[in-house]
Amino acid sequence: MTNYHMQKSEREIIEKTVLEEILERGRYAVIALCRENDPYVVTLSYGYDPIKRSLYFHTARKGLKLEYLKANPSVCATVIEDGGYIMGECAHAYRSVVVRGNMEVVKALQEKKYGMEVMLGHLEINPEVVRKRSLPDDRAYARAAILRLDILEITGKAGR
Amino acid sequence: MTNYHMQKSEREIIEKTVLEEILERGRYAVIALCRENDPYVVTLSYGYDPIKRSLYFHTARKGLKLEYLKANPSVCATVIEDGGYIMGECAHAYRSVVVRGNMEVVKALQEKKYGMEVMLGHLEINPEVVRKRSLPDDRAYARAAILRLDILEITGKAGR
Repeated sequence: MTNYHMQKSEREIIEKTVLEEILERGRYAVIALCRENDPYVVTLSYGYDPIKRSLYFHTARKGLKLEYLKANPSVCATVIEDGGYIMGECAHAYRSVVVRGNMEVVKALQEKKYGMEVMLGHLEINPEVVRKRSLPDDRAYARAAILRLDILEITGKAGR
Repeated sequence: MTNYHMQKSEREIIEKTVLEEILERGRYAVIALCRENDPYVVTLSYGYDPIKRSLYFHTARKGLKLEYLKANPSVCATVIEDGGYIMGECAHAYRSVVVRGNMEVVKALQEKKYGMEVMLGHLEINPEVVRKRSLPDDRAYARAAILRLDILEITGKAGR
C-alpha cells in the first residue's frame, strides 16, 4: 500500500535511520488538515522529538488551523529535502517523508516548555540566545500555542 | 478572513503580480487532499498556466492520490519559496501562496498535450530535448495522467 504510487523515477525509503535523518534535517513541515471534507494546508517550523516520536510546533493562539484541528485532529504532513529540478530530465531531486498522525494543542505549561525546548534544540545552534530574549519567564508561554503531532505512520520516498 | 492567522512576523501578500511571480518561480506544489475526512498530502512538479489560471501536473495513471481526487476534487495547495531558517531569530524567511480549487484528471488528448506543454514550458529551459525523447508520438500520452488544478482562490504570505 505504501508504495502504491511509486513511479519508476522514485524509490521508497525503508531505512528507519534515513527517515529519522530527514526529520532531523528538516526545518518546516507542510501539513494537510481537513474539516467536513474541506482540505486545508499549513506550513510550520518544527522541532522533532525522536523519543516521543512527535513533532512540536509553535503558533499563534488563534487561527484557522486551530479550528480545523478542533474539528479533526487527524493530519498528514510532509517534510521535503529539495535537491532542485534536474534540467533536461523532466525530474526533480528530492527526499521526503510523509507522516500521518494526530495533532493537538498542548495544554500543560510543563509540556509547553518541553515542546519549546525541542523546537529550540532542533532549530537553533545556540538556543540560549532565543531563550533569554523571548522566554524570560513562564508568562511568555501564555501568549503562544504549542502543537504536538504524534507520528502514527511514516513513509519516505526519494526521487532522482 | 484571509489574514486571520497572520502573526507579527508575517505579512500578507496582496499584489497579484507577486502572487503570480511565486507561482511562476515555483517548481513543485504540496497539495492537501481529503476523502471521508481523512487528510492526505502529495508533492508534485507543476506547470503554471496564467491564462487558464490553472496548474498542470504529470503523474502515474494509478495511485492513492487519484482515489482521493475521485472521492473529492477539492484541494488546497501551497507553493513555498524557502529563504532558509534565520539563526538566532527563531524565524524562517519565505514567501508562499496557498491556492484552493478543484483538481481533475484531464481526459482529452488535446488538453493532455496542452498541459504537458505548459509543464515543459514552465520547467525546462529547452523543452524540445524532453519533447523529442519522452513524447515521440501521441501514444506517450496514454501512459501518463495529466491533472489540472483550477485556481478558485489564492492568498500569499511572506515571513521575514
